[in-house]
Amino acid sequence: MSVSPADEVAGPGVVARVSAVLGAFSTAPAEGLTLTQLAERCRLPLTTAHRLAGQLERERVLERSPDGRYRIGLKLWELGMLAPRGHGLREVALPYLEDLYEVTHENVQLLVLDGAEVVVVERLRARNAVQLRSRPGGRLPAHATSGGIVLLPSAPEVLDALAAGPLERFTAATIGDAEQLRATVALARRQGWCELRGHLTPGSVSIAAPVVVHGRPAAAVSVVGEIGTDSSPLIPALLTTARAIARALAAARTP
Amino acid sequence: MSVSPADEVAGPGVVARVSAVLGAFSTAPAEGLTLTQLAERCRLPLTTAHRLAGQLERERVLERSPDGRYRIGLKLWELGMLAPRGHGLREVALPYLEDLYEVTHENVQLLVLDGAEVVVVERLRARNAVQLRSRPGGRLPAHATSGGIVLLPSAPEVLDALAAGPLERFTAATIGDAEQLRATVALARRQGWCELRGHLTPGSVSIAAPVVVHGRPAAAVSVVGEIGTDSSPLIPALLTTARAIARALAAARTP
Repeated sequence: MSVSPADEVAGPGVVARVSAVLGAFSTAPAEGLTLTQLAERCRLPLTTAHRLAGQLERERVLERSPDGRYRIGLKLWELGMLAPRGHGLREVALPYLEDLYEVTHENVQLLVLDGAEVVVVERLRARNAVQLRSRPGGRLPAHATSGGIVLLPSAPEVLDALAAGPLERFTAATIGDAEQLRATVALARRQGWCELRGHLTPGSVSIAAPVVVHGRPAAAVSVVGEIGTDSSPLIPALLTTARAIARALAAARTP
Repeated sequence: MSVSPADEVAGPGVVARVSAVLGAFSTAPAEGLTLTQLAERCRLPLTTAHRLAGQLERERVLERSPDGRYRIGLKLWELGMLAPRGHGLREVALPYLEDLYEVTHENVQLLVLDGAEVVVVERLRARNAVQLRSRPGGRLPAHATSGGIVLLPSAPEVLDALAAGPLERFTAATIGDAEQLRATVALARRQGWCELRGHLTPGSVSIAAPVVVHGRPAAAVSVVGEIGTDSSPLIPALLTTARAIARALAAARTP
């Protein structure tokens, strides 16, 4: 492949634009985006959006539905499955999450910290249990979820940024100031787990524990139940599950 | 965002290169790729590979491990989860795949056709069952898998290209010529399912049925067992599962 001077100059802008085009789909409806919608969401001229989308379609990163709308393509899904912090982590952890679900019959989640949010890597939904706001590949605010709180000690700069505020409130119980945030994180670090009641949705309680591999929290496991649930019998199962996943991750050398 | 003339000229090359850089990870070891390995796999000069990888890291599409190796980043995994033919399909189909697994206690797979290959969208591995060659996000040759055979009637141009040969042989039983391929595909279409014994690996038998939504096969479900397995009692369960997934897909309007 030849390298022209134009490539050398133009690269950064194009990569950022490709990232913007793909990112536009994170809040897109299930049926996909028309070219006009895509251009508007990326703040790109229609001609530029058309050219980029066409190139991404040729690379099978985007696909078009029969009605012409653009959607994330199968190729991108395949590439995404190679992410160690996504699918790799999920593959190792899944049997232990299933065991925790069988024992507790509550919703079970596997989360990783990314900036000031936690990303839901896997989620086992209990039938007849409380509704979850999350979906695999979705994000939740770290300061309002027990999984986020147990991961924040590993990211002091993120904790400082969150403490500098403002903190978005989702319910009357959501942590709203720096003092309360630092105290909750400190307690979670001391006891090795965190419980939050009604912080993200009024009707649910979540408990979480970090999955610590080689001294570093690689992920968090959480159990989400109805607000009236007595969490004390769930905590030992949560802690043993987090440790089992940590052992399996260390053995698989998957960070 | 401004559009410089250089972008206009250089775009296509950069998008193709980004695709090549990401594609290099599809056969990468779990620990990731060094910059030198990445450049070699993409046939790019080291400086170009370094610049592109750096830009992709800034966009969080790639991540670096503590030892400096590049890996697919969490952002790409999140974006990939939005692919309707990947995760969207899997989310709708999973409960029915689990039911099929509970009933058969054999390996169960969900596949889609992409070019002359089938992509494994989900795979439930039976403990103590025959080993599978596949992994979620992985690919198998369409002409050597029952899931591929039941999907080929929907892609006559792919069938023609495969029939033009040559067809890769994996075992002595693998379909090796156009006549046998067309006859096997025609039989599968007529009876609504396909059975292949030892075509991909000598010790296994696979049966598959298409998931037909609005008259178009959207995916295939397959059951893979040991070569000695009597598949006749499995076929009705396979067929009802494929229909149940088709109904759920039509209801979810996920293609």
